[in-house]
Amino acid sequence: MSTSIQQSSDASIVSQICDTYKLTIAEFNTLRERSSAAKATAYCPYSQFRVGATLLAGDGSYIDGANVENASYPVGTCAERVAFGKAVTEGKKGFRAVAVATDISPPASPCGMCRQFIREFCDLSTPIIMFDKDQAFVVLRLEQVCTLLVPVYLPSTDSYTWLAHEAYNARSHHESRLSG
Amino acid sequence: MSTSIQQSSDASIVSQICDTYKLTIAEFNTLRERSSAAKATAYCPYSQFRVGATLLAGDGSYIDGANVENASYPVGTCAERVAFGKAVTEGKKGFRAVAVATDISPPASPCGMCRQFIREFCDLSTPIIMFDKDQAFVVLRLEQVCTLLVPVYLPSTDSYTWLAHEAYNARSHHESRLSG
Amino acid sequence: MSTSIQQSSDASIVSQICDTYKLTIAEFNTLRERSSAAKATAYCPYSQFRVGATLLAGDGSYIDGANVENASYPVGTCAERVAFGKAVTEGKKGFRAVAVATDISPPASPCGMCRQFIREFCDLSTPIIMFDKDQAFVVLRLEQVCTLLVPVYLPSTDSYTWLAHEAYNARSHHESRLSG
Amino acid sequence: MSTSIQQSSDASIVSQICDTYKLTIAEFNTLRERSSAAKATAYCPYSQFRVGATLLAGDGSYIDGANVENASYPVGTCAERVAFGKAVTEGKKGFRAVAVATDISPPASPCGMCRQFIREFCDLSTPIIMFDKDQAFVVLRLEQVCTLLVPVYLPSTDSYTWLAHEAYNARSHHESRLSG
Repeated sequence: MSTSIQQSSDASIVSQICDTYKLTIAEFNTLRERSSAAKATAYCPYSQFRVGATLLAGDGSYIDGANVENASYPVGTCAERVAFGKAVTEGKKGFRAVAVATDISPPASPCGMCRQFIREFCDLSTPIIMFDKDQAFVVLRLEQVCTLLVPVYLPSTDSYTWLAHEAYNARSHHESRLSG
Repeated sequence: MSTSIQQSSDASIVSQICDTYKLTIAEFNTLRERSSAAKATAYCPYSQFRVGATLLAGDGSYIDGANVENASYPVGTCAERVAFGKAVTEGKKGFRAVAVATDISPPASPCGMCRQFIREFCDLSTPIIMFDKDQAFVVLRLEQVCTLLVPVYLPSTDSYTWLAHEAYNARSHHESRLSG
Repeated sequence: MSTSIQQSSDASIVSQICDTYKLTIAEFNTLRERSSAAKATAYCPYSQFRVGATLLAGDGSYIDGANVENASYPVGTCAERVAFGKAVTEGKKGFRAVAVATDISPPASPCGMCRQFIREFCDLSTPIIMFDKDQAFVVLRLEQVCTLLVPVYLPSTDSYTWLAHEAYNARSHHESRLSG
Repeated sequence: MSTSIQQSSDASIVSQICDTYKLTIAEFNTLRERSSAAKATAYCPYSQFRVGATLLAGDGSYIDGANVENASYPVGTCAERVAFGKAVTEGKKGFRAVAVATDISPPASPCGMCRQFIREFCDLSTPIIMFDKDQAFVVLRLEQVCTLLVPVYLPSTDSYTWLAHEAYNARSHHESRLSG
């Protein structure tokens, strides 16, 4: 299992990944494009952290979602749950892949709450494709996404900033983020 | 402010309600039919309590949702939040009405978490139309829906049953459910 | 029902409030002091918005809580739910009052999710005492706390700031915050 | 990594486990007894599924919690989050172990939402000790608890029952529950 970041522009890698996860290259590209585009539909005035998600259902259709936050933080809904809520109530099933896109690098993985939500409707072998700000990606099966969203609070700094967030993520990548 | 249950078949009442809340009769009927139909799309194996929700957006479109539950109860999403998640990420705004349909009577009101979610996107004057199992209804403005989903646990019974739930709701209607 | 802000230093007002809500002045003062002190126990690196909560149980004991946030915003827990989670699992019941303290003015009310949580364990007549940054306060019964936490996103500004938050709250106070 | 169920009565196994996870036998036993006892403090009229949780903090103290459910399922709080909410606001840190006890076998693991909550305050190497109905147990590090709470909905049955739940869990144990 590799957790290194792959380039979407590397046709050889993409082809190999698609083979492993039983996706066509067209499907992979659609997941990449739609999840990245879905970021623009996020309502995230509180975190200013946009997340887009796209599901590939068993009937070949795609369902998009993005995070919808709330003034009371715990009331908000993550991108993955918005997409699955829409998909499930529209009768979709047999999900073949879940794509998640954010504006950071390395890419963010679904939070634990979302993975619990996804598990209700997906086999543990379902691929979770995580795209970073440049559409480079990491792909893991649901059962492999052991890591949890890391805390971004830095006790040594006075204020929390996205710069710090990115620095923290970059620093912690090999330690904990995707290698879990 | 009346919290008594109105009959959808009473044209005079419906007409008067529509006038008060600035809805056409066709819009009211569509909200009633769609929210009731949306119940069939619920994924609620844990509570077996189906909820359908339909929003009327400012552009005249309707957006449906239903509850999507999870083996870990707190991870599930209510019907109203599924519908708003879908609507907001699809760019809808200026919501003119929220309809919620359940299989009990008197009709259930949105829970506190959902009303917090709704508040993020709706004026306090937005009508919340609650349909019961027979499509009879109660309508209140968001600011008037003070009541919260009542606990259905009955300490005096050994086991919790939906019969008890309905009996409790019937009993508590005038005391607390919609008269808040 | 008055929603104007009262001064904790005004003995006459406090006495009258205590009479209305069946609290002793000592109980009121303890709720004020403990909920304000509880703010210091918050874990809120993401919002930097501290909330303290204190419950007065039927046996005369006090239970404190504060918000505990998470890198994944929806996973965090508000102050009121931390306090009630602690209280309920410690066997407390018959809650006579709920105090909530924040660093803004006018004081914040419990969010909809928390009011739903509170409703499970409290009568609708239970007083919710909301203290502002200077321990001035507003008190309402659970059934009267119709207002929901207002969204703090200001579409007309490029960036979200707490200054804006406070300005928004101040501006919207008479319109929607506590007059609901 | 073994996910087989261990007997708490097997002194040799317990000793070996304690050595691996840097716990004393007294600490292990206290975690077992307290988490099992904490089940009795659950408020779970909706699921009737009791969960107890006990944390061992860096200062040697223990903090208990249990699930506190709500009529609106998503509003409830799991045992682990109740315990951590209490612990964090009481200034506890440096958590050395998390114990979770339920009434089923094999033992249940924390749901994804709780693992996300735990991650905020614990290293990935923190042991999660899961006790079953007879206090037999499975222990894994936070980073190893890849599995998510499995859906208990059985499409082939007309009604959901706890008997079915237990049968399902028993059946799926080696496939997915703890071997993830």
